Amino acid sequence: MSGMFITFEGPEGAGKSTNLRLFAEALRKAGCEPLLTREPGGTPIAEQIRALLLSEHDEVMDADAELLLVFAARAQHLNSLIRPALAAGKVVISDRFTDATYAYQGGGRGIPDSRIAELENWVQGSLRPDLTLVFDVPIDVGMARARARSELDRFEQEQQSFFEAVRTSYLRRAAADPQRYRIIDASGSLEQVGAALQPVIDEVLERWHG
Amino acid sequence: MSGMFITFEGPEGAGKSTNLRLFAEALRKAGCEPLLTREPGGTPIAEQIRALLLSEHDEVMDADAELLLVFAARAQHLNSLIRPALAAGKVVISDRFTDATYAYQGGGRGIPDSRIAELENWVQGSLRPDLTLVFDVPIDVGMARARARSELDRFEQEQQSFFEAVRTSYLRRAAADPQRYRIIDASGSLEQVGAALQPVIDEVLERWHG
Repeated sequence: MSGMFITFEGPEGAGKSTNLRLFAEALRKAGCEPLLTREPGGTPIAEQIRALLLSEHDEVMDADAELLLVFAARAQHLNSLIRPALAAGKVVISDRFTDATYAYQGGGRGIPDSRIAELENWVQGSLRPDLTLVFDVPIDVGMARARARSELDRFEQEQQSFFEAVRTSYLRRAAADPQRYRIIDASGSLEQVGAALQPVIDEVLERWHG
Repeated sequence: MSGMFITFEGPEGAGKSTNLRLFAEALRKAGCEPLLTREPGGTPIAEQIRALLLSEHDEVMDADAELLLVFAARAQHLNSLIRPALAAGKVVISDRFTDATYAYQGGGRGIPDSRIAELENWVQGSLRPDLTLVFDVPIDVGMARARARSELDRFEQEQQSFFEAVRTSYLRRAAADPQRYRIIDASGSLEQVGAALQPVIDEVLERWHG
């Protein structure tokens, strides 16, 4: 028995978290109780690493150090929470996973994809999400939403070009593997995005029942 | 111009830190001002990672996560402190480095050396210490000294077999590369250890002047 691993990806202000809640609610109504989690984080130790990653420091965080911290949190999350849940047959939905690493540390910070892939293989072995939803939104729209919401963290304070690279990385990876990725146009209203999600929810329930 | 990278290794209570101070003092008297640092740590961000590594948590820290945290701290330390100092021609002395990772996370926790080597190469490229002093002491002697000194941290609370594996790993690595490693018998008095260190100090000063 093995569950289903679904990841929600996208930049700040794309509406990932809100839609994740609605998505999970729809699964629950159909009798499927998903495990909801997030990255970086998802366990007490991984959340402490998240705090280190998102906060300001008295020195510049080295890009390699940042990437290793991301994967340290991921190893903790995977081995102590996600793998056991999948082994128990659960549907696991994570708000961000390794695609975010390719987008932020790869596209954003400029670490080569091949270097990220080495750590991905080291930490995950052959484990990859079964389904990845990429919430796509124009940079301006996403940033305006993020700014309206709260103070910006260390990543949210980056420049326009950083977020362009993040968006490009997500879209490029999604385009390369349509079997696993679904691009969701997140620029519209919650109702419009909800309508775009419905076929994905149906697909998940179908796989889950099957 | 490139400096010299010296690492001090050994288990708890081997007298590494005390002898590191005396070693540095001897270099200073001869006109060589070394940069002293330690692992995990050595920079503000790396010291925060150290605190995560050494403290107790509400969940078990995954062995892979622990290893990635060690190398995250190392990347920060290397790229922001050690590499610039070596490039400026300095003698850098670090209280622990990657040999400790092979000893504790490899020997102690059982992570295969090959898996550690992958991360070592990923983080360090070809950089290795020029000289590594391994302070060797019987487990009982070291642990008695460590216990007398302060409360035991997360690593110091491990079992006898853990420390046997740590010691074995250090000695095995030192034996395999006598060019780089010097084993220092640290079971004797401070004076006896000091006498054993003198030829190493002479060697460092000779290389430094040359």
